[in-house]
Amino acid sequence: MVNPILVEVTRGTLVESVHRGSIAIADAAGTLKLALGDVVSPVYPRSSLKPIQAMPLVESGAAEAFGLGDEEVALACASHSGERMHTVRVAAWLERIGCTEADLACGPHPVRYEPVWRAMLARGETPSRIHNNCSGKHAGFLTLARHLGVPVAGYEKHGHPVQQAVAKTLAELAGVGADMPWGVDGCAAPNFALPLAAFARALATLADPTARHAAAARRIVHAMASNPELVSGTGRACAVLMRAGRGRVVVKTGAEGVFAGIVPELGIGIALKIDDGATRASETVIAALLEKLGLLHGDEAAAELIRAPVTNTRDAVVGERRPAAALADLVLPARG
Amino acid sequence: MVNPILVEVTRGTLVESVHRGSIAIADAAGTLKLALGDVVSPVYPRSSLKPIQAMPLVESGAAEAFGLGDEEVALACASHSGERMHTVRVAAWLERIGCTEADLACGPHPVRYEPVWRAMLARGETPSRIHNNCSGKHAGFLTLARHLGVPVAGYEKHGHPVQQAVAKTLAELAGVGADMPWGVDGCAAPNFALPLAAFARALATLADPTARHAAAARRIVHAMASNPELVSGTGRACAVLMRAGRGRVVVKTGAEGVFAGIVPELGIGIALKIDDGATRASETVIAALLEKLGLLHGDEAAAELIRAPVTNTRDAVVGERRPAAALADLVLPARG
Repeated sequence: MVNPILVEVTRGTLVESVHRGSIAIADAAGTLKLALGDVVSPVYPRSSLKPIQAMPLVESGAAEAFGLGDEEVALACASHSGERMHTVRVAAWLERIGCTEADLACGPHPVRYEPVWRAMLARGETPSRIHNNCSGKHAGFLTLARHLGVPVAGYEKHGHPVQQAVAKTLAELAGVGADMPWGVDGCAAPNFALPLAAFARALATLADPTARHAAAARRIVHAMASNPELVSGTGRACAVLMRAGRGRVVVKTGAEGVFAGIVPELGIGIALKIDDGATRASETVIAALLEKLGLLHGDEAAAELIRAPVTNTRDAVVGERRPAAALADLVLPARG
Repeated sequence: MVNPILVEVTRGTLVESVHRGSIAIADAAGTLKLALGDVVSPVYPRSSLKPIQAMPLVESGAAEAFGLGDEEVALACASHSGERMHTVRVAAWLERIGCTEADLACGPHPVRYEPVWRAMLARGETPSRIHNNCSGKHAGFLTLARHLGVPVAGYEKHGHPVQQAVAKTLAELAGVGADMPWGVDGCAAPNFALPLAAFARALATLADPTARHAAAARRIVHAMASNPELVSGTGRACAVLMRAGRGRVVVKTGAEGVFAGIVPELGIGIALKIDDGATRASETVIAALLEKLGLLHGDEAAAELIRAPVTNTRDAVVGERRPAAALADLVLPARG
């Protein structure tokens, strides 16, 4: 099966590059509301899995036991930009659970937020593990390990009780067997692969307040929707879309062209994967879908994610990134 | 027509992302030696066009008149990393033709070579137009304008004699009409679109010393092959592949997933385009093709472009980028 072209990038009068991909929209019962392209082959949700990876943290009572607020829960679901608002909170959180940066299994990488990165370079500083975009997720894993009374060391291994709790929750929410294929994510934690349709269903269980796991799901969705910049960073697509959504939608990006969406008022989960892994395309697709669902309230920054100008080094507009026909003409199922 | 999957990127036991694309290999007479995927629709060669954009500079006598050496000719064909070896030479070249940085139409962008960029940030410096990866190409355009005795200002406009000379040369070498569609490149100069098969033919005319334009073609191929790092930069794919090729092959990357190859001993040109514009894929494809042609001499750095490890922030290998079946199983035409 060849997935349809969802996004095209133009230059002058021609389409220069195209991005294929697939989209699944499901409800919590697993009913597919939309299936475009291959929604059956397993895909890695990558960081778009984080809201579900945070479920055991909340459901186990660990979050409550350690007095985590919405900000920490949002950071547990974050791919953050390494801004001060992120690193200060993660550092304080680690201290609260009796851990240090050395306990984090994620490695350092260049800080995404330019002003911080430039200032660090100017001072000759190197990034720490707390700057890793996944440090909040890892702080969440450590918190769960503490709460379970299991060794903190090795919490990122597939066989560790923390990761097994994640696998069990994901399998149940997605309606798949617990023997999902998995790979090692950029941050060293396991990432589980599952059909896009099943991932959309898992996301829908976080959207649907009548679903099982409702209390934890509500907490996570509320924490993310209330803290768009903590989940991502200044100006990032997730922040732009959640701000445009005014609390009506939660989205989470993932590496290699994945995006997840949770729409409580519709009880649906949205999962999409760009075949080639391009983030520029996944951002256009999720923004276009939210616009079709009437969730962007005419927000200009969000609209520019749908149709983004391609500029050159002289800041001239020389083309645009836009939905291709299969996406532009897509009719989403009516409400209810 | 759906192009075949040429490259796949794995994680754990699964293929996580794939890249489709097309490949054309032709001789100077326009005979297609290989056509995989769509080689008919127009594509922008982007910076892989530079060896041909440099042809009028040499053929007009401008290069000789201003005493340009192989290093300047190589820089005219370069997408350079902004290292000192590049910027010092471009600055001196501009001075030689009575121009300054202000005459360059290309805008500034972050310097690609990390040590230079970090040092600049640490000193609070901003990049200049000379740091633009295309500054050598633009110095070449300016040199041609000087030689033609036409105004320097506006040399980057489609209607300027410099760009018309480029269009005329490209059309002739490629065997297409002069009314090619065009767009504005990242550096503000026009970039002309043509079928991949025709672009491969144009490249072959630089490979085949019996073709018209032989003297200029030989000069450009020699200049590039002799200065792999000036054409690209320390550790860049073009430099790695040309060093591995030991003078037997010239390659040039282009944005949005294009790669060009020139193989004088076979009299062929190679042109490829990745549908989605991914550089990681275009590098794997050109490297795999050169390996099949016996041009990499067992070089390890070049082999790692074919099968590249995917690492995470802990430097663990978590997957690999590799040729997919359509590329791995490709049988190239026998020599002669």
